[in-house]
Amino acid sequence: MNYSIVFYMTGRILQIEALLFTLPMVTAVFYRENCFFALLISALIAGAVGFFLTTVFKKKDSMIYVKEGMTIVALAWILMSVIGALPFVISGEIPSFFDAFFETVSGFTTTGASILTDIEAMSKGLLFWRSFTHWIGGMGVLVFIMAIFPQESGRSIHIMRAEMPGPIIGKLVPKIRETAKILYLIYIVMTVIEIILLCVGGMSIFESIVHTFGTAGTGGFGVKADSIGGYSPYLQWVITIFMLLFGINFNLYYLILAKKIKTALKSSEMWCYFAIVAISITAICINLHSVYGSFSETFRHSSFQVASIITTTGYATTDFNTWPEFSKMLLVALMFIGGCAGSTAGGLKVSRIILLVKAVFRDLKHTLHPRSVASVKFEGKKIERDTINGVTTYFALYFILFFLMLVLISLDSFDFETTFTATAACFNNVGPGLSAVGPASNYAAFSNLSKMILSFAMLLGRLEIYPMLLAFAPALWRNKNH
Amino acid sequence: MNYSIVFYMTGRILQIEALLFTLPMVTAVFYRENCFFALLISALIAGAVGFFLTTVFKKKDSMIYVKEGMTIVALAWILMSVIGALPFVISGEIPSFFDAFFETVSGFTTTGASILTDIEAMSKGLLFWRSFTHWIGGMGVLVFIMAIFPQESGRSIHIMRAEMPGPIIGKLVPKIRETAKILYLIYIVMTVIEIILLCVGGMSIFESIVHTFGTAGTGGFGVKADSIGGYSPYLQWVITIFMLLFGINFNLYYLILAKKIKTALKSSEMWCYFAIVAISITAICINLHSVYGSFSETFRHSSFQVASIITTTGYATTDFNTWPEFSKMLLVALMFIGGCAGSTAGGLKVSRIILLVKAVFRDLKHTLHPRSVASVKFEGKKIERDTINGVTTYFALYFILFFLMLVLISLDSFDFETTFTATAACFNNVGPGLSAVGPASNYAAFSNLSKMILSFAMLLGRLEIYPMLLAFAPALWRNKNH
Repeated sequence: MNYSIVFYMTGRILQIEALLFTLPMVTAVFYRENCFFALLISALIAGAVGFFLTTVFKKKDSMIYVKEGMTIVALAWILMSVIGALPFVISGEIPSFFDAFFETVSGFTTTGASILTDIEAMSKGLLFWRSFTHWIGGMGVLVFIMAIFPQESGRSIHIMRAEMPGPIIGKLVPKIRETAKILYLIYIVMTVIEIILLCVGGMSIFESIVHTFGTAGTGGFGVKADSIGGYSPYLQWVITIFMLLFGINFNLYYLILAKKIKTALKSSEMWCYFAIVAISITAICINLHSVYGSFSETFRHSSFQVASIITTTGYATTDFNTWPEFSKMLLVALMFIGGCAGSTAGGLKVSRIILLVKAVFRDLKHTLHPRSVASVKFEGKKIERDTINGVTTYFALYFILFFLMLVLISLDSFDFETTFTATAACFNNVGPGLSAVGPASNYAAFSNLSKMILSFAMLLGRLEIYPMLLAFAPALWRNKNH
Repeated sequence: MNYSIVFYMTGRILQIEALLFTLPMVTAVFYRENCFFALLISALIAGAVGFFLTTVFKKKDSMIYVKEGMTIVALAWILMSVIGALPFVISGEIPSFFDAFFETVSGFTTTGASILTDIEAMSKGLLFWRSFTHWIGGMGVLVFIMAIFPQESGRSIHIMRAEMPGPIIGKLVPKIRETAKILYLIYIVMTVIEIILLCVGGMSIFESIVHTFGTAGTGGFGVKADSIGGYSPYLQWVITIFMLLFGINFNLYYLILAKKIKTALKSSEMWCYFAIVAISITAICINLHSVYGSFSETFRHSSFQVASIITTTGYATTDFNTWPEFSKMLLVALMFIGGCAGSTAGGLKVSRIILLVKAVFRDLKHTLHPRSVASVKFEGKKIERDTINGVTTYFALYFILFFLMLVLISLDSFDFETTFTATAACFNNVGPGLSAVGPASNYAAFSNLSKMILSFAMLLGRLEIYPMLLAFAPALWRNKNH
C-alpha cells in the first residue's frame, strides 16, 4: 500500500473542500448571517489539514493501483464529511456532532435523510452548504479533481471506477481527464437549465438553486417542512422531469452532444428504466384512484413520487406514508432498483437488475441444457463472464450487509416498517422511508449508534460497497501474489 | 420433452398418495370419525387418476433428462397437493378449496402456515393427515418412490436433484436407490426415537406422532392453539433438540452410521449452523433479560424459537411476536438462512450462505489483485466456478422473486410487517411470521389471490425455485442445442 499517495490525494480533496466553502460563505454574507464565521473556520481547518497532508506526503510519480484508489475514495469521503459537518456544530445550529456528521454524510452521498426537526429555522448559508454537498457528491469530488487538475488525471482510472456508480465504467473518450471534464460540463449545463426553469415558475433564486442541487445530485434536501408539496404543479413537474433526467446514464447525453442520437436511443438500460417508471406510475395511479380529487392530481403525485424514489432523490409532494400498502411496497421495491448506472442516482442500478435477470435466464437455460454455452449480451455487446459474476456477487454482498445492518438498527426498537425502510432508504441513498421515517418525519429519534450505522450504510451505498469495505479490511490488502 | 415419462411418473406418485391415505384412515377408524369417508373418497380418486396416468402413458425405457426431472417434480407436487386437499373439502372441515389447497401445500412443503382459526375443533383423522404431509414432504415423495421401486431408480438423479434441497447433491453410495433407502431409514429411525421420547414425557401417542411429523419434516403443524406452549419444559426441550437434529445434513448421519465420525465432525456447514444457533440464542437471551421470570425460562424460550425458526419448522412455545424488535429481526434473518443442505429444513441453507460469503471474499480479493486466481474451498474440496456462480445467481433469483411476491401480497393491504414476514415465512417454508401472521395468528384473513401466491411461494421455496419456474416457462424448453 502506497500511503504517501493516499494521504496526498486526500489532502488535495480537503483543499478543494476549503474552496467549496466559499459559495455558502457568499450566501451567508448576502443574507448577513452569523453562520459565515462557522463556515470560515471550517474552510480554514479544511485548508490547513489539506496543506499539511499535501506538504508532508509529497506526491511521487507512482501508479495508483486499485487498493490505493479505493482507499483514497473511502478516506476522502469520510474526512470530507467530518470537516463538512463542522459548520453545523460550530454555528450551534446542529449541536450534536453525530447529528451533524449524519446530515453531512447524507448530503455528500446524495441520500437526503435528515435529522433536522425544524428545517425552516436554519440559516440560509448552512441550508445552501447542506444542499451543495448533494451537488458535489452527485458527480463525485474525485472526478471533479480529475477534471481540473491535469497532473492528477494520468493514473486515476481506479479512482474514477471507485467513485462512479454502476457495474461497467466506460471512458467516453480515451483520456480520463477529458471524460471527467465532459461529465462535469453536462452536469453544470443541466443544473443551470433547471435553475432557470424553476425561477421562471416563480421560485426564489435561493430556493431554485437549493432544489436544483437536490435534484441534480438526486439528493433530496429541501428547505421546507413539506418538501416540494407547497409549490405549484408547474414547479413540481419541472422537478419530476429533472429528477428523471439526472437518473439517466450521462454517457447518453455525451452521445447526444456528439450527434450520435441513434446510438443513445439504443440504450436498453434507458428504455428499461423508463418502462419501470411508466409501469410504476400506472400501477400507483390505479391504486390511488380514490385518494386525490382529480386524475391530474393523482397522476402528478404518482409521477413525482415514482421519479423521486427510483432516482433515489427523496423529495415528496405528498406524504406517501399515508398511501395504500401496495403503492408503498412498490416504492420500497423501486428504492432497491435505483436509477441508471453512470447517473447521480443510487440503488442497485437498472443495468445491474438487467444483468441479474439475464444471468438468471442464462442459468436456467444452462440447467436444462448443461452442454449449451449461453452468452449474455447487453447494450449490443457480449458481457464477460467475470462481469456477470461480479454483478451477482455484488447483489449477494448487498443483501448480506443489508440484513446485518437491519438487525443492528432494530436494537433501537422502532417498528419493523421503520427499521426496514430506514435501512433501505439510507443504504440506497433515497432519504425518506416509511412509518417513523416517512417523508413527513426525520431521523432525529435514532440513537447515536444507529446514526453511525446508517451513515456507514449511506457511504456503502454511494461508493458501491467495495471501497468502504476494503478500506476497513486491511487483511485483504495482504496477498502474496502482489 | 418426453411427456410420456412425466405423466407416467406423476401417476405413480398419485398411486403412492392413495396408499398414504390409509394411515389417516386408520386414525379416523380408531377415533370413529366421519372424516374416514372423505379420506376414502380422496384415496380412491388419487388411485384412479394414478391408474389412469400409468396405464395411458406407458413407461418407455427412456432417460429422464433435467427438464423431465424438473417437470415431474413440479407437476407431482402440485397434483399431490390438489388431491391432498380433497379430504378437507369433502369432509366440510375446510369448506373453501383455496384454503384447503393452501393448507395442504403448506403441509407438503413443510411450511406449517395455517388458515385454521379453530384447530382444536378439527377431527383427529384430518389432523393426522395434515401433519403426515409434513413427514412425506420433508424427505420428498419422489425420493420415497426411488427407495421402494427398484425399476424407477436407474435414471432418476435429476429427480433427486430437483427434490432434494441444497446447492450440492451428493450421492451417499453409487446407487441412487441405495442412497434413497438409507436416507429414509435414518429418517424413520429418528422419527421413532422422537415419538418414544415424547411419549415418555407424558404426551399422548396421537400428539407425539403428530408433533414428531411436524418436527421431522421441519413443518410445524400442531394440534393446539398455542402450538407447543402448553407442554412441559421436558417436551419442549425434546422438540428443540430434534428440530435442530432434523436441520442437519442427513449425509452426516450416514457417515456416523458408517463409522466415519471424524469425517462427519469436519463438516464446516454443521459447525457454522451450530455457531449461528448459539450466537442467536445468546443474543436473544440478552435482549429478553427482563421478559421472563427466570433465566432457565428465557433460555428455553430463546432456544426453542431459534431452533424452530432456523430449521424453518415454525413451532412456538411463546408468542414471539411480542418480543422486542431486535429479537424479532434476528428471527426474520434466521428465516432466510434456514437449515443445512440435505436436511428437511427450508430457507437459503447454511451452505449457500457460506458459499456466498466465500464468493464475496474471492471477489474482493480479485478486485484488489486482478491477476490473482483465488479458488473457493468448501468442506475440504475445491468448488467449481460454475457451482459458485450457480449459488450467487440463485440468491439473485431468490430475492427478485421475493420482491415480486411482496408487491403482489401488499395488494391485500396488510401492514408492512405482516406482508413482509408472511411472504418470507411462506417462501422459506417457516410458517408463522410476525404481526398479523404471528405464532398466535393464522393466514385466514388473506384473499384467495394471496393464498394462491403464497402457496406458489411455498412450492418455490421447498423445491428451490428452478423446477417450479421451469415447469411454468415452456419457452425455456426450446433450445436448438438439444
